[in-house]
Amino acid sequence: MPELRKDPIVGRWVIISTDRGKRPSSFSAVSKRVAAKMCPFCPGQESNTPPEILAYRSPGSQANQPGWTLRVIPNKYPALIVEGSLDRAPQGIYDKMHGVGAHEVIIETAEHAHDLVDMTDQEAKNIFWAYRERMLDLERDHRLKYILIFKNHGAAAGASLEHAHSQLIATPVIPKRVTEEIDGARRYFEFKERCIFCDIVRQEILEKERIVADYDAFIAVQPFAPRFPFETWIIPKTHQSSYLELTDHEYLVLARSFKDILYRLKLALNDPPFNYILHTRPVSREHAEYYHWHFEIIPKLTKVAGFEWGTGFYINPTKPEEAAAYLRNIEATFEGSRERSEAERSKG
Amino acid sequence: MPELRKDPIVGRWVIISTDRGKRPSSFSAVSKRVAAKMCPFCPGQESNTPPEILAYRSPGSQANQPGWTLRVIPNKYPALIVEGSLDRAPQGIYDKMHGVGAHEVIIETAEHAHDLVDMTDQEAKNIFWAYRERMLDLERDHRLKYILIFKNHGAAAGASLEHAHSQLIATPVIPKRVTEEIDGARRYFEFKERCIFCDIVRQEILEKERIVADYDAFIAVQPFAPRFPFETWIIPKTHQSSYLELTDHEYLVLARSFKDILYRLKLALNDPPFNYILHTRPVSREHAEYYHWHFEIIPKLTKVAGFEWGTGFYINPTKPEEAAAYLRNIEATFEGSRERSEAERSKG
Repeated sequence: MPELRKDPIVGRWVIISTDRGKRPSSFSAVSKRVAAKMCPFCPGQESNTPPEILAYRSPGSQANQPGWTLRVIPNKYPALIVEGSLDRAPQGIYDKMHGVGAHEVIIETAEHAHDLVDMTDQEAKNIFWAYRERMLDLERDHRLKYILIFKNHGAAAGASLEHAHSQLIATPVIPKRVTEEIDGARRYFEFKERCIFCDIVRQEILEKERIVADYDAFIAVQPFAPRFPFETWIIPKTHQSSYLELTDHEYLVLARSFKDILYRLKLALNDPPFNYILHTRPVSREHAEYYHWHFEIIPKLTKVAGFEWGTGFYINPTKPEEAAAYLRNIEATFEGSRERSEAERSKG
Repeated sequence: MPELRKDPIVGRWVIISTDRGKRPSSFSAVSKRVAAKMCPFCPGQESNTPPEILAYRSPGSQANQPGWTLRVIPNKYPALIVEGSLDRAPQGIYDKMHGVGAHEVIIETAEHAHDLVDMTDQEAKNIFWAYRERMLDLERDHRLKYILIFKNHGAAAGASLEHAHSQLIATPVIPKRVTEEIDGARRYFEFKERCIFCDIVRQEILEKERIVADYDAFIAVQPFAPRFPFETWIIPKTHQSSYLELTDHEYLVLARSFKDILYRLKLALNDPPFNYILHTRPVSREHAEYYHWHFEIIPKLTKVAGFEWGTGFYINPTKPEEAAAYLRNIEATFEGSRERSEAERSKG
């Protein structure tokens, strides 16, 4: 059973998940790329994954059989597992508990090589809608305090399979970074009686320098103090503390915004590996006044890591204003290219 | 001039250092390995580096000429620069200041391929002594609040040159991770009136499970909640808040401890890339009662990164108890191997 352990000094929880099978002797092994025909996420391979939790399928198709366009399954090597009680306990000055939670994989498409940037708007929207459906379901489990949605794209960003997928981890604790955001936003709110994210959106729209694109309900922006080159945030323009507060139409707008931003990053940076992470309010509703959900997209371009991990001190070689200007200039290309690719798709 | 920017939500400072020359268009370029004969850190290449700040040299040899065994120079592409004033200023809701500080390189040896594990005890001690000398010098600059010492070993850990070197960055702010440690240690001290690191050392010596080695003045231990497989901390056994409090002899013991631990990691993990980072008290002496200096060594074994960066939530596939046992068992091999290599060295 996985175990959650708390660092007694800085209060960070860590999952010790030996079920994932890394014994000390296994680190020398080189990871292998899975060939497309062996891909467990492709149609016809459903029996090689745990049974599905959710699927968007054509009428008449059967569960765990082909006929789906999006499929959610439990992770075969889960970092946290659903069964069991937390059994929170001390060990001398330390704290630990059982690794209870959920770890799911959202298989975003039935096609092996079909990324979000190439999808139709409706295909893309289904991904963001699936996130919502899974979050609503898991929020009913009172052991769970936070639901993390994230995507690793490309081997260098941690993806072990290339078939497009994202992941969900539901945890019995609130991740440290989220706690820090909540604390920072609360301090600002106590002083100003305004949401700091709303003020950031206001200032960014006014200054224009770090905005990449303005999409009706959202802005895509390079943060003022980015840790990484081309780090991009997508923030709703009106105050919403939870990802679940979007209207049906806004999920479509969000999907279009993601297609646009990921396309620009792909073109600007030669199809870089990247991660995106949803930052939303914890399951409990208490921080609704001052927390403001958003996505953070991090292209993996620089290698230096241990130093930044160890210190929380980042050196970024690219000004966000410069990165934003570079990405803004790709717009025209994108519009044309999107139309072209849709024309090609309808021809085929 | 580099710029320091503060994230307004979580309070993290970031260095925006465009002098390091990464333009948006340059990220596609593949990094090249420098051949040994072109290495700017080798003797004879002194004119290709900025003038030295400190060097341990044979009697009669001249500054910036061969004849040295260890050499400290300013980084050619500094993240922070010594000249100028901070000019701390707001920009709407944001905060920024000039990137004033120091960024130095400690060239650990004159030999191109000569790592710490292969050095004599005295050669190794000189590295730790040079850290001390540079820290003492920089602490006199009242603009500087923190002095970071770290090493990147291997390309995957961020080293751009393979000739053994470590780095020093002196900053006008305290890195976030250090602030978190200080805050955590203070909270514990307020409640218990004891240093949390001292209590950790006590419990680890008692439990034995996570100890890798006990070296007289220090222990090497896997932390209870490690972020990464084989993460190893070296902690002084008695209370010291600053790295500068060691006796002359203790720097030698520290050097020996490092040689031993790095050798075990090298053997256990097939010469892994790694980072080590010195965590010591800020220049100001106010946290002396409850802060306790130590080194954190992080082998770079796992690729998943963006998710952990984005959330502060780590998934570690290896139990620290298992990693510690694995490293403890290498002791005998190491003793033999060290004697062998010293015998070979004296033969050559």
